[in-house]
Amino acid sequence: MEIEIKFRVDFNEIRKKIENLGARLIREEVQEDLYFSVPLPRLLRIRHVINLGEVILGYKEIQDEKNEEFEEIEVKIEDFEKMKEILTRLGFGEDVWVKKHRLVYKLNEVTFELNKVENLGDFLDIEVIGEDVEEAKGKIWEIAQKLGLKDSDVESRLYQELMREKREATLR
Amino acid sequence: MEIEIKFRVDFNEIRKKIENLGARLIREEVQEDLYFSVPLPRLLRIRHVINLGEVILGYKEIQDEKNEEFEEIEVKIEDFEKMKEILTRLGFGEDVWVKKHRLVYKLNEVTFELNKVENLGDFLDIEVIGEDVEEAKGKIWEIAQKLGLKDSDVESRLYQELMREKREATLR
Repeated sequence: MEIEIKFRVDFNEIRKKIENLGARLIREEVQEDLYFSVPLPRLLRIRHVINLGEVILGYKEIQDEKNEEFEEIEVKIEDFEKMKEILTRLGFGEDVWVKKHRLVYKLNEVTFELNKVENLGDFLDIEVIGEDVEEAKGKIWEIAQKLGLKDSDVESRLYQELMREKREATLR
Repeated sequence: MEIEIKFRVDFNEIRKKIENLGARLIREEVQEDLYFSVPLPRLLRIRHVINLGEVILGYKEIQDEKNEEFEEIEVKIEDFEKMKEILTRLGFGEDVWVKKHRLVYKLNEVTFELNKVENLGDFLDIEVIGEDVEEAKGKIWEIAQKLGLKDSDVESRLYQELMREKREATLR
């Protein structure tokens, strides 16, 4: 399982702190994610990683109320538009786009996804893969504290939800 | 659109006739197709082309009563099992497997798909891509006649339907 906590951050400030911890930059991605209308706790999206020319179909099942525990299945696909067309024809409606610039750092078994999200702001997802949820959360919080992050910095809403709220606020 | 007529044939006999017409062998495939339970006129399958190591997600919409006119969208994917898992989690049930050995020949704009289908027998699909359905069918029948194929050789049921009937007969 994927255990992940999302914090609201300042991109440049937290970036320096992550690097000072000794974490290694392993990837930079410009992602354009199209989410489909699938009832929670399920998520379905096609991710286009623009700078790497990759397209990935992603399915997630949220396992908890705080959106911190996920089961995830991802599969690379050849073509964004064709996949979108198949899902649309199968009856899945387009929900929202989430576009971000992401830096991925690693420090031992901890992954840092530092995101500048278009129209939403800066976020840091700290992630650990594991079966023992409490142990994983312990590791995440140990690191979060070293970065000066607090409980009040946590953003428990999904990017898809934040984007949907943004859209609804705009329509009002 | 894809216009295609399926005939029951004898694999070796019709193969010789196709080659005598001057058609060119362009591909040989060992296909294992998993069809999902999607209501007609839609078809959804994952195709594993064993000998080429390719996996393709395929979606079709049948446009006519005789199953001769299709709209088709195909997209290459990286992994059969992951795609199957995503579709299953999204609620699509597995229906039937169709396994075949296929030779693909081409003569001008006509494609011949000669299939030895596990548990079902030998079939020849003659296919033309085009927007004018009547013109395309005219071309298909002109070639079919040269191969000695008649109206009574036509099999209008889909492979998925034939396989389903086979399964139901076995269960009886």
